[in-house]
Amino acid sequence: MTIVAGIHAVAEYLKSTPERVLRLSVQRDRRDEALSALIRSARDHDIQVTQVSRDALNRISEGTVHQGVAAHCQEFQPRTEVEFESFFETLTDPFLFAIEGVQDPRNLGACLRSAAGAGVDAVLLPRNRSAPLSSAAFKSASGALSSLFVVGVANLARRMEWLQAQGVWVVGTDDQAKQRYTDYDYGSSTLVVVGSEDAGLRALTKERCDALVSIPMAGSVPSLNVSVASGVVLYECVRQRAHQSTTD
Amino acid sequence: MTIVAGIHAVAEYLKSTPERVLRLSVQRDRRDEALSALIRSARDHDIQVTQVSRDALNRISEGTVHQGVAAHCQEFQPRTEVEFESFFETLTDPFLFAIEGVQDPRNLGACLRSAAGAGVDAVLLPRNRSAPLSSAAFKSASGALSSLFVVGVANLARRMEWLQAQGVWVVGTDDQAKQRYTDYDYGSSTLVVVGSEDAGLRALTKERCDALVSIPMAGSVPSLNVSVASGVVLYECVRQRAHQSTTD
Repeated sequence: MTIVAGIHAVAEYLKSTPERVLRLSVQRDRRDEALSALIRSARDHDIQVTQVSRDALNRISEGTVHQGVAAHCQEFQPRTEVEFESFFETLTDPFLFAIEGVQDPRNLGACLRSAAGAGVDAVLLPRNRSAPLSSAAFKSASGALSSLFVVGVANLARRMEWLQAQGVWVVGTDDQAKQRYTDYDYGSSTLVVVGSEDAGLRALTKERCDALVSIPMAGSVPSLNVSVASGVVLYECVRQRAHQSTTD
Repeated sequence: MTIVAGIHAVAEYLKSTPERVLRLSVQRDRRDEALSALIRSARDHDIQVTQVSRDALNRISEGTVHQGVAAHCQEFQPRTEVEFESFFETLTDPFLFAIEGVQDPRNLGACLRSAAGAGVDAVLLPRNRSAPLSSAAFKSASGALSSLFVVGVANLARRMEWLQAQGVWVVGTDDQAKQRYTDYDYGSSTLVVVGSEDAGLRALTKERCDALVSIPMAGSVPSLNVSVASGVVLYECVRQRAHQSTTD
């Protein structure tokens, strides 16, 4: 079971996939308009609502900020690669994003939030090289998981090859790359790949990329937080695509 | 006293401002090349190094990831507004950033890291509307604080007016703004202002801005994490400025 805590995250979950919400725990001594609306929404979907103490809710939400509410949800199941291949066929100018080895659940959640904001069509997560989609990840994803197509990938390098064969250009981010991320043309079919917080992309993954790009760094910090780097590169794709569609 | 934990953050601090490091605590049973290099560097600066247990180091670093080392540093003191005014006179085409009311120290640190990466000249922090520059903020700033010019501001709206009188254009980020952040010309003298995680900019601050811009949001998330939003907008400034300097 996955716990989703916090007003916005629970509201988003109830709106998009109410069938996955098993029950709601709400803080007994707390009542405000946002919380009341959530309770009404849960009852509309025949979801059980339990009143609990603040201490109990703290335990349930595993230390994340809950704002008086936590939803007990079915475990988040990434889509299979078979489902992804069917979904891929429906896409025009696919805009894809892969997160190779992010270890911190909060960072992973923030990356997913950046990806959802930028409007990527799907996120590829290697099954065995990624933080779990825990409550902390859900919380920092801030509702992104309810609308994102997330696919669990057994072998990222092989999936990249498959995508390349379908005409997708694969661009990896790498601190050492000579090409600036703004000098790359993200074209119409793109997969952006980011690596782990410390080590970046694996050597095998880098080799498979059609291009490697870096974000210029000033000052004394060697790199950006991975969710910020994701946002910066994905929004450059968005900017270029918007520009292309107005000049076509 | 401020605790700075983690290999990279401590190394950066020792390199840039060793005079602020009072002593180092290192984990007794941990020895690797990065840690040994830090110990040598501390001794070169006559900084005392104390061996402690892992438990003690966990307590000292207040639950942040320490990787075997924590530096006990003089409290971080933002620069005064008088110092800022002198510094401002030395700047050509100032690139400034203000963070209005970010409440979470990790978010504040990540915003500072984004600002340092983008190469802003100074960061304005309202004295009474900001998370403390705690160990958690230092950690997520990842060394940014050692090179950034951070100024504590008594009244942000008034400081914005002062900057406008000096020819600086002030642009605020606002989810509701009609103008996209990519459609604004950040020109040569710019202050970018971001607001708090939940509420964004205060009404008074918005009114004083020369322009308000928004980041387009797809999917089900209403906004980006504030450090991601900061990175996206600041790096758009960097992109435009680099483009201008090559086409001048």
